[in-house]
Amino acid sequence: MVSTRSGSERLRIIPLGGIGEIGKNMMVIEFGDEMLIIDVGLAFPEEEMLGIDVVIPDMTYVLERQERVKAVLLTHGHEDHVGGLPYLLRHICVPVYGTRLTLGLVEDKLREFGTTLHPDSRAIAPGEILRTGSFTVTFFRVNHSIADCVGLRIETPAGVIVHTGDFKFDQTPVDGQVADFHRLAEFGDKGVLVILSDSTNAEKRGFTQSERVVGNALDDIFRRAKRRILVASFASNVPRIQQVITAAYEHGRKVAVVGRSMENVVEVALRLGYLKDPGVIVDLQSISRLPDDRVVLLTTGSQGEPMSALTRMAMAEHKRVEIQPGDTVVIAATAVPGNEKLVHRTIDHLFRLGAEVIYDAVSPVHVSGHASREELKLMLNLVRPKYFVPIHGEYRHLVHHAELAEMMGIPRENILIAENGTVLEFHKGRGRIAGKVQAGNVLVDGLGVGDVGKVVLKDRRQLSQDGILIVVVAINGKTGRVLSGPDIVSRGFVYVRESESLLQEAKERVAEVMNTCEREGVTDWGRIKAHIRDALQSYLYKRTRRQPMILPIILDVNGGEEE
Amino acid sequence: MVSTRSGSERLRIIPLGGIGEIGKNMMVIEFGDEMLIIDVGLAFPEEEMLGIDVVIPDMTYVLERQERVKAVLLTHGHEDHVGGLPYLLRHICVPVYGTRLTLGLVEDKLREFGTTLHPDSRAIAPGEILRTGSFTVTFFRVNHSIADCVGLRIETPAGVIVHTGDFKFDQTPVDGQVADFHRLAEFGDKGVLVILSDSTNAEKRGFTQSERVVGNALDDIFRRAKRRILVASFASNVPRIQQVITAAYEHGRKVAVVGRSMENVVEVALRLGYLKDPGVIVDLQSISRLPDDRVVLLTTGSQGEPMSALTRMAMAEHKRVEIQPGDTVVIAATAVPGNEKLVHRTIDHLFRLGAEVIYDAVSPVHVSGHASREELKLMLNLVRPKYFVPIHGEYRHLVHHAELAEMMGIPRENILIAENGTVLEFHKGRGRIAGKVQAGNVLVDGLGVGDVGKVVLKDRRQLSQDGILIVVVAINGKTGRVLSGPDIVSRGFVYVRESESLLQEAKERVAEVMNTCEREGVTDWGRIKAHIRDALQSYLYKRTRRQPMILPIILDVNGGEEE
Repeated sequence: MVSTRSGSERLRIIPLGGIGEIGKNMMVIEFGDEMLIIDVGLAFPEEEMLGIDVVIPDMTYVLERQERVKAVLLTHGHEDHVGGLPYLLRHICVPVYGTRLTLGLVEDKLREFGTTLHPDSRAIAPGEILRTGSFTVTFFRVNHSIADCVGLRIETPAGVIVHTGDFKFDQTPVDGQVADFHRLAEFGDKGVLVILSDSTNAEKRGFTQSERVVGNALDDIFRRAKRRILVASFASNVPRIQQVITAAYEHGRKVAVVGRSMENVVEVALRLGYLKDPGVIVDLQSISRLPDDRVVLLTTGSQGEPMSALTRMAMAEHKRVEIQPGDTVVIAATAVPGNEKLVHRTIDHLFRLGAEVIYDAVSPVHVSGHASREELKLMLNLVRPKYFVPIHGEYRHLVHHAELAEMMGIPRENILIAENGTVLEFHKGRGRIAGKVQAGNVLVDGLGVGDVGKVVLKDRRQLSQDGILIVVVAINGKTGRVLSGPDIVSRGFVYVRESESLLQEAKERVAEVMNTCEREGVTDWGRIKAHIRDALQSYLYKRTRRQPMILPIILDVNGGEEE
Repeated sequence: MVSTRSGSERLRIIPLGGIGEIGKNMMVIEFGDEMLIIDVGLAFPEEEMLGIDVVIPDMTYVLERQERVKAVLLTHGHEDHVGGLPYLLRHICVPVYGTRLTLGLVEDKLREFGTTLHPDSRAIAPGEILRTGSFTVTFFRVNHSIADCVGLRIETPAGVIVHTGDFKFDQTPVDGQVADFHRLAEFGDKGVLVILSDSTNAEKRGFTQSERVVGNALDDIFRRAKRRILVASFASNVPRIQQVITAAYEHGRKVAVVGRSMENVVEVALRLGYLKDPGVIVDLQSISRLPDDRVVLLTTGSQGEPMSALTRMAMAEHKRVEIQPGDTVVIAATAVPGNEKLVHRTIDHLFRLGAEVIYDAVSPVHVSGHASREELKLMLNLVRPKYFVPIHGEYRHLVHHAELAEMMGIPRENILIAENGTVLEFHKGRGRIAGKVQAGNVLVDGLGVGDVGKVVLKDRRQLSQDGILIVVVAINGKTGRVLSGPDIVSRGFVYVRESESLLQEAKERVAEVMNTCEREGVTDWGRIKAHIRDALQSYLYKRTRRQPMILPIILDVNGGEEE
């Protein structure tokens, strides 16, 4: 089974995303000429990626070796682990394995892209073993903020890898499914070459609280609420949704679901049996006929996303739900970094409408899905790996996780801090950093994947700051005589009616430049444009201290426009 | 002294900024035809205010009544309390009163604007009484994250106002100056009509920790550090800077200051005696000759601001300081909401350069400058106001502070939640909301104050998302014949070399539109442009799912351009 090409017995672990960042997780495991891919996630654009919809990993390394790929393994159904999959499956056709809920969510997503899974794809239950090529993969259950989440033990001829996925140890999980402590201990007993472990909360002391804490808080809130209750949460957090349903049931309320992504997840989770409905879920129309104290609305918008249901309600712009004084709104989530202001704005608007708003700053209505330091230690003590690689975290998280591993007795030289693209090579039981392959961000903007590069982003940045000023002149290309213009059009720079004199004077500056050029016999259009740009730039900066993009267009009425 | 015009005995309190928001604090106190202004701050732009430098309060209400203004009173020297002052003083010439450090910082700032304070302006010490018009103002000391911070008791013929400014109660302040508990108790005994109290931390339980906690953390860090120590903090936090200097002194290190705003504040604070230097401050050149374990660099950049000293160092772009493996970098601040990502990025880069980075998530190197709930309660118990108005906070903070006041026994009808522009009127000991005056944001962009309105921002937003596509056609205005073009230039939309065919096809669409218009006898330029816009919009969206701004320009070679 193992290829006999030289050097092929080396095991290579290559993260293509999720290292030094939160999001777009993707990992390549290579042995000989066989390749496994763990997760293919997406990330949301950084602030400076103007106009970008999502970011996916640069998959060049995989695409150039696509015949080697045996399978894609998914740890769970969050976007940062599966959101990039449609873009990969466009190019390569391989089976995808994951738990039942994960595949259910993925199939739903692929449908939007007009595609489906490879027919050999199938659901793998935690504890089940999958053999593919030289790899033997055991899925083991971990806890996280989504149901049916697993880590992976991958046995290769060069040694055993444990990939934790995203995890926490919840001793009292809502669905009763505790993490596979026993199996992890067994892995440790048999020997693990290297662990790849989730670093997201490596700064946090102690243990992450159980999801059940949120259930207790909800119970309290439901007991006190006199009128309608609205709960916003991450759509994918099925255990939390279950707790909302349970609280509703126990307090004699019905639940209606509002918002597309929440509706989708609830539908999938109910169908696959991950969500139990004791008969409380009704549609929005029926619930509106019930008295307020029997109503729960389960909604999207916990991140203050401008188009989401809760945000529209907060702005009094939702078509079907109007916030009323006395409503209780629970935001059972935490703001993802970068979303704080949006979430705060939503909360403020809801308060203004007279709602009582309950959120993580004032009540334990959210717990993290990631292991804190004591859980990270427990993982290491169970698995007892020879090598340690911190994954899933920004650089400081990786550093803190590495320090923790060293404190736990893993020798410093056996701790490998990677970046995206780093090649970790294991040979005869020894690991090292063995180079770097192409990796990075691919920006998705509309239908364009990777076509928005530095120049376009730089232009968008400049346009966003001070707008654009377009100067048009028509000349006779043969004689150089100005036939029309200069004319100036601006957008995003100044409000034209208030700045007529400014633009008028700018025109005069351009006319001067044109005259000078004609007088001095400058006929090269590039040079004329540069002169126009220089003259306007300094004039406008002096007058306004702004630096709009200046775009001179010279039109040759006898020929074409040359830019 | 009191005007005899009808209704003039009413006391009016009108917040023009800082209510329902953090920042640009400004408050008007009116009695009869006399007016006091408390603080004139600025705010930093929200994310959607593209290209805007700062935001100041809409001061129309004051400017239309400028002859009434007796004085501006400043509670402390933070930008959100004094940063808008230069814009006010451009229009009205009145004395400004504040403590010595506050005025020192303000004078420094006014110098940049090429202006100075009114000659009657002077420093007022805490405890001192200022009489102006019908108002008798007592400055009382409070603790905050800047030295020399005060609240104000304002006696008017209609009753006494207590304005807390920004405050906390630090029982062990670094400068030994505890808040004026005794004076507050005395105010309470004499009777207070209304308190205006800082709500920033109204969500936070317990007491805010003493600034001294940071000193202890610094002491620990300085003891362990083997090589250079860099400390970044808010430049204005003089007590914290003092603690850095003290720690350096005690551990035998020298301190050099890096970064313009830090240099300015240190200079002012040393000159006015708010900062004591036991002989450790040296210049950057001298410190570079010392061994690493004797060096402290005190720097700006605690917010990850792109142009700041620490950020440049983290990016390995600072001209004079290079981060070395083994350096200890302390970020003795917390990320202001919205800056989290920038701060995290700086921390990650510093770790990558091999520094040990210590920040608020992992060590108590920052404490808040605002009162938590127990301190807010203490303030109310000391001052015992009849009316309560929560100020300085986003709407949810005001709501939580109001709930707390109600819990403390202030009747619900005596709790007035205002917004910017709300008129709070007090007459014969009774208060009510009595209307609204013009208030809001004035955007400052370069030299322009208030000239960037909705249209310009909307254009910048669209430009930032998908760029712009400019279509130029030259026609003979008389005959309607196309003389040149259509030509297309785009910026921030697609990378032209990769999208030649797209733009070529777009040109053909425009040519078709022009032909159709000519054939159908459409000569109205507005209509032709609208047709071009429609045709391109739907074509480009179909091909790219992007919506650039489309700007058709028709040039009349016999006349002018008409847009």
